[in-house]
This record gives sequence, structure tokens and C-alpha cells, in this order.
Amino acid sequence: GRNSPMKQTKEFLLVRDVMSTEVATAREEISIQEASAMIVGGPFDHLPVVSEEGRLIGMVTAWDVSKAVASGKTSHISEMMTRKVFIASPDEPMELAARKLHHHKISALPVVDKDHRVVGMVTSDHLSRLYGRRGSL
Amino acid sequence: GRNSPMKQTKEFLLVRDVMSTEVATAREEISIQEASAMIVGGPFDHLPVVSEEGRLIGMVTAWDVSKAVASGKTSHISEMMTRKVFIASPDEPMELAARKLHHHKISALPVVDKDHRVVGMVTSDHLSRLYGRRGSL
Ligand SMILES: C[S@@+](CC[C@H](N)C(=O)[O-])C[C@H]1O[C@@H](n2cnc3c(N)ncnc32)[C@H](O)[C@@H]1O
Repeated sequence: GRNSPMKQTKEFLLVRDVMSTEVATAREEISIQEASAMIVGGPFDHLPVVSEEGRLIGMVTAWDVSKAVASGKTSHISEMMTRKVFIASPDEPMELAARKLHHHKISALPVVDKDHRVVGMVTSDHLSRLYGRRGSL
Repeated sequence: GRNSPMKQTKEFLLVRDVMSTEVATAREEISIQEASAMIVGGPFDHLPVVSEEGRLIGMVTAWDVSKAVASGKTSHISEMMTRKVFIASPDEPMELAARKLHHHKISALPVVDKDHRVVGMVTSDHLSRLYGRRGSL
């Protein structure tokens, strides 16, 4: 019933328990071709863009690259990137992260520390894994 | 415990209960710019490619567009698209679909009928929704 281990496993799963910690970041000076190569070479469709101090300032995704291609003009990363980035904290429940993903129609959240440095990434692929692994929710 | 309604809800959720049914498809003759516009204008990063008879023959995604941009040459859809497409059936459990998504490191499965016509799409965003909706798993 209510206090079964299965239920608990779900309730207490935090972003830090699930997130990927190897995350490549880029500076906004790189070209769209370089950004595309990083996206294609990495495990996510998402590339967090950071300032000189390593703080998150934006996000470029494969979708943004498609948007540039659709418009027929290849712009700079600084014009393509999303600046209002939805983020997760390592200590928030996965359930909240999942709600953000769904609510904002996105598939990844950079996980940042209190200095706004990228420490991980949590994606809808992590949810596929959790959902597909019988008994883990 | 084992027979609680929560558990049952999860066990019996089928792809047809969850999938999106409004799915745009494309023919392989379209340009990369047109394909990008369809991806950007639609709800998925994924564009199923169909034959003249409407049968699924491939998939082009925002990731494939990024790959073309990274390589510096814009090729035809027929060269860019993935031909070995992992699919789902409307009657399979969502749990199996989730396992396929995770196992193949993809975020969407076209749902096809027995004639291989696209009748829907199931994506990792659906899993974000299910996971984020407390009590639905
Ligand atoms: C392996 S994924 C990895 C990229 C990214 N991490 C993602 O989530 O999409 C990228 C490739 O998967 C292909 N792909 C996407 N959905 C697919 C499906 N249902 N069946 C087969 N290939 C698919 C795309 O065409 C693309 O070439």
C-alpha cells in the first residue's frame, strides 16, 4: 500500500541521483557548425552556453540549428541561443524536473549549482530509463 | 501493495492511450530547408518520411539536420534520413516503448498500423508528463 518501497523509491528520487555529470559546454563565440558538431558528438541534443566565468547564459539545441536552417540564414550562436533557460537544482525531486520538462515542452534541463555553474544535465531520456525499468518507480 | 490501483495504472498503459495522433509526415523529395521548417513548425523533433503509398520508410530529426550542418554539406533527405526506424504498435505497453527509447538512445517512436502507415507518435515527452503527474504511475 501507501508505504511500499516502490512508492518510496519514486518519492525520494532526486535530480542528483539521476543526472548525467559529463556535460560539454560551449562559449557563445563558436560557429553554428562547431555547435552542431558538439551536439552531434555528444549524448544530448542540447548544448549549454556559458560565460567566461563558466556561468550558464544560454542553451543551443538541435532544434535551434533546424530553425536556422529553415530560415535559410546561419546566424551566430548568440542570436540562436535561448537565454531564458529552465534549470534544475541537484537537490530537487525528479518529479519536479519531469514537470518542468513537460510543462515547457523541452527535453533537457541543465543542472546548476548555486553559482550557476553547470554540474549536470537531466533529460527525458533519463525518464525513459526510469519508466522502462520495471519496478524502479 | 501489489494490486493497488496505482500499480495497475502503470502496468496497463498502452501506447494508444498515450500517443499523439496528429503527426505530420514528409516525402523524401523535400529539401533539408523544408524538412527543417516542418520540424520547427511541428510538435516533435522528428519527421517520419513516407513512401508514395504512405508507408513509413525513414525518419529525419533535428539531430540529423545538425549532423548535415556539422559536416558542412547539405545533403538530400534520402541521404540524411535513418532507414532502420524503431517503431511502436498501438497495442504495446508504454513500458516496452520506454525501453526501446532508452535502449536505442532516441526520443520518439512512430506508431504504425499493420500496413506500416503512421498512426501516431510516442515520445519521451509523454514520459515526462506521466512521470511528473503525481500518482499516475
Ligand atoms: C541516436 S539519436 C541520438 C541523438 C539524441 N540524443 C536524441 O535523443 O535524439 C539520433 C539519431 O536517431 C535517429 N532516430 C530518431 N528516432 C528514431 C527511431 N524511432 N528509429 C530509428 N532511428 C531514430 C535519428 O534519425 C538520428 O539519426
